[in-house]
Amino acid sequence: MFRTAELGRKVSKEEFDRQAGPLRIELLELQQTLRAADFPVILVFAGVEGAGKSESMNLLNEWLDPRWIVTRAYGPPSDEERERPEFWRFWRDLPPKGRIGQFLSAWYSRPFMEFATAAIDDTTFDERMTRVQAFEKTLADDGALILKFWMHLGKDAQKKRLKSLEKDPRQSWRVTAQDWKNWEMYDSFIRAAEQLIARTSVSAARWTIVEGQDDRYRALTVLFSLRDALLHHLERRRLQRQTRTEAYASLVARDATGPGARAAAGVGAGMGGQVLPNLVAGLPTVLDTLKMDSALEKKDYRAGLAQQQGRIALLQRRARVQGVSTVLVFEGWDAAGKGGSIRRLTQALDARQVQVIPVAAPTDEERAQHYMWRFWRQLGRAGRVTVFDRSWYGRVLVERVEGFAAEDEWARAYAEIRDFEEQMVQHGMVLCKFWLHITKDEQLSRFKTREETPYKRWKLTEEDWRNREQWEAYEHAINEMVERTSTHTAPWTLVEANDKRHARVKVIRTVADAMERAIGKPKGSG
Amino acid sequence: MFRTAELGRKVSKEEFDRQAGPLRIELLELQQTLRAADFPVILVFAGVEGAGKSESMNLLNEWLDPRWIVTRAYGPPSDEERERPEFWRFWRDLPPKGRIGQFLSAWYSRPFMEFATAAIDDTTFDERMTRVQAFEKTLADDGALILKFWMHLGKDAQKKRLKSLEKDPRQSWRVTAQDWKNWEMYDSFIRAAEQLIARTSVSAARWTIVEGQDDRYRALTVLFSLRDALLHHLERRRLQRQTRTEAYASLVARDATGPGARAAAGVGAGMGGQVLPNLVAGLPTVLDTLKMDSALEKKDYRAGLAQQQGRIALLQRRARVQGVSTVLVFEGWDAAGKGGSIRRLTQALDARQVQVIPVAAPTDEERAQHYMWRFWRQLGRAGRVTVFDRSWYGRVLVERVEGFAAEDEWARAYAEIRDFEEQMVQHGMVLCKFWLHITKDEQLSRFKTREETPYKRWKLTEEDWRNREQWEAYEHAINEMVERTSTHTAPWTLVEANDKRHARVKVIRTVADAMERAIGKPKGSG
Repeated sequence: MFRTAELGRKVSKEEFDRQAGPLRIELLELQQTLRAADFPVILVFAGVEGAGKSESMNLLNEWLDPRWIVTRAYGPPSDEERERPEFWRFWRDLPPKGRIGQFLSAWYSRPFMEFATAAIDDTTFDERMTRVQAFEKTLADDGALILKFWMHLGKDAQKKRLKSLEKDPRQSWRVTAQDWKNWEMYDSFIRAAEQLIARTSVSAARWTIVEGQDDRYRALTVLFSLRDALLHHLERRRLQRQTRTEAYASLVARDATGPGARAAAGVGAGMGGQVLPNLVAGLPTVLDTLKMDSALEKKDYRAGLAQQQGRIALLQRRARVQGVSTVLVFEGWDAAGKGGSIRRLTQALDARQVQVIPVAAPTDEERAQHYMWRFWRQLGRAGRVTVFDRSWYGRVLVERVEGFAAEDEWARAYAEIRDFEEQMVQHGMVLCKFWLHITKDEQLSRFKTREETPYKRWKLTEEDWRNREQWEAYEHAINEMVERTSTHTAPWTLVEANDKRHARVKVIRTVADAMERAIGKPKGSG
Repeated sequence: MFRTAELGRKVSKEEFDRQAGPLRIELLELQQTLRAADFPVILVFAGVEGAGKSESMNLLNEWLDPRWIVTRAYGPPSDEERERPEFWRFWRDLPPKGRIGQFLSAWYSRPFMEFATAAIDDTTFDERMTRVQAFEKTLADDGALILKFWMHLGKDAQKKRLKSLEKDPRQSWRVTAQDWKNWEMYDSFIRAAEQLIARTSVSAARWTIVEGQDDRYRALTVLFSLRDALLHHLERRRLQRQTRTEAYASLVARDATGPGARAAAGVGAGMGGQVLPNLVAGLPTVLDTLKMDSALEKKDYRAGLAQQQGRIALLQRRARVQGVSTVLVFEGWDAAGKGGSIRRLTQALDARQVQVIPVAAPTDEERAQHYMWRFWRQLGRAGRVTVFDRSWYGRVLVERVEGFAAEDEWARAYAEIRDFEEQMVQHGMVLCKFWLHITKDEQLSRFKTREETPYKRWKLTEEDWRNREQWEAYEHAINEMVERTSTHTAPWTLVEANDKRHARVKVIRTVADAMERAIGKPKGSG
């Protein structure tokens, strides 16, 4: 794989100087264009020690305007990072749209080193690479331009490079005993690198192998690659926008007066754009399997609530000590009682360890990132409880139904969500997801009560009435959501919520059961 | 001081129930009003162990809508927190406008415990309280409503409370050996508390002493205090807005055609609103003391630049190892060469350890916080170099001159800035501040070059020309900025920048000198 990167390619000083001037201006201008673009650029530099990874990053910082570049290298994780899933630190460092992020080894570093030194086997390495692939795919699908450079040196060339660095008093610190140990294992490293590249060089995030021996050749290779990729990507995004606009125009023309017109306004998204709803209309969904007459008498409610609140209070304290975090997701119809259930739950918990996150319109910092970014950033530290009042499922519910997300966006969200939740669970976090279900009649009667109660009136908006009109479309979206995201590791709990008492007790009991499974039954609990 | 909090005040269950219903609705409605308000609410709960601090926080979370409340308690700082000044962790947790943040002891905790146990003396305690006062004043000046509750129990009452907690199997974990040790030192704690309260109970952030023995009395005291304070603060803010609007109207009426009209548009701010500029116009400023013919020959420049870049490269490596962070502030006239100087500096540094922060319009998350918040959040981890391309000085420069900040806002910014910078320096960070100065003629010639050079044209905007018209107002603002913020711990470096070569070398040498003073001269450096 690396034979073509051991050819001894060189660029003369004259040639370099001739190319450098115009290229630098071109790159600066491209960077300006990028600043107004709707995607970020993510550069990864990895490869052989001494082959010019950090030199390349320095070079970019020097040639381009460093104000719009985020440069990151990773040492051992900080304690705040260790308390979240491994990829949290990478998500938090992602560049917003219009900027460049350059990463040294980053998400490749640990799996590569562990695999090369046989600390993990093929299967584990493969799993890690699957996660990396999913991460990069998630970003690329959202428009990110991802370029990865593998800087290479032959075995002899590396030896020479390490020796010459050692000789230079200003560079000698860079060469450690570990580097020489690694050099002796050169062949294992190369084998690992071949697998890594083969496994993660996909069209949306391709590796470029760069011969690292000659500084000038290496620099020009990286810079020209960046220029070409940027030019190509800017053009590709432009064409995509154009295609969407045309698709939109044709949809509008076709459906101008039909029922699809509203959905078409969402640029080819929404339920109206699909044939399915008509086919499945009237057919039962997973919601129809619920026993909607489930109810609790006042007395049983009081006893049940007290019992479950007591359980969860003890469990939370234990979870805090053990550093086990809990993430709770609340979704449900308007007026289904999310707020009330959350309050009965947080009542029992130590407020210092709980954060309720209301999910509404994203801030502009959030809009400049991938859709999932704003949820990643909210994950709490070890032992905390994070309650999402609405969540990342908005993508496949309201954004889908209302056409705020394009079809490809919400359709791929299922996989992105599964990946996100799997990472939480693998990290040892407790995850519960609730859909609070009420019948259409029950919703109407609750809306009316809200209208009539002065201090509840603010809770009822025009939007609630509008959402209600889309009841069937939502039912269909909910059914598909459960189908695609209720997994063994992260199951949905559907809550019969026509009776608030039943719903509240069921929610807290479900959370307590899940915590108990994760951390064991506390002593002294009923 | 605490005698009035040992009266055995109680509220009967009937009385409590009678009050609770309407009060809860009132608070929920006030919280809704607050959500649209232009200030945050900051609640601090401190006091005697067992007097109901965390119970009060839980209560608020239960009574109000927990989605708009941030609740924070602090254990030992995380490593990411230890790497910044002590107050960084509090700044990062501040609630945005419209929300409530409730804090357990927080910035009072450490100084109080250390003082009560005689780990620090009066002078040190006093210094700490000065810092706390400055912090709260900064937030209150910006409109924050700050309420502080000191929960009190008499010595016997505390003993009884601790014993009863110990007896309850669900609460016994809360009482530790340390609590009993503290109880034996009850009198020292009370003496410390008296000093703390006396020192930090100022009108904008008053302490309310709450008798903690009776749960219901305590709850109602806290909740009614919050209600009254909120009502009062909302009204006060409304009146302030009204006064400003009237002042603005009268200014506009008076100056409709005069030179003050433009400044009046900034709501009573700007240079136009002042008498001073007319008095000082034409008088020399600190900028006139600069030798503007300072220059370097090309040959000397090359040698000087190489030498200083070499120094700084070595110093940065050493600073990284020692965990010493560097913060650099670049201010200067448009086209004074900030970007070029920054690039020559970062060229010499390891890109992985440097972050250049371009300061432009704040994001909406930043706008929802105190002006200084967005600079606090950018402070880098230990050993890193953070370069601010424009900075918090915008408040007393462009925002003052253009009238974007009201006079009271920019006038108090000097003290806020000194406090911020002092905290950095006390934390061991290296701080350098540069004003890059060019003459008005030199600026004109650079603007013209930019107009004529295709790939530089984007750098020149309408705004640059407009700023130029305000040259004298800026000179005056710069003079005052240097006067008020060039301190022994954080001096300004004024850079004669008509000659770019001279400026660049001077900048890098100044940074290298400052780093050298902080970490010592590296071995092997010239």
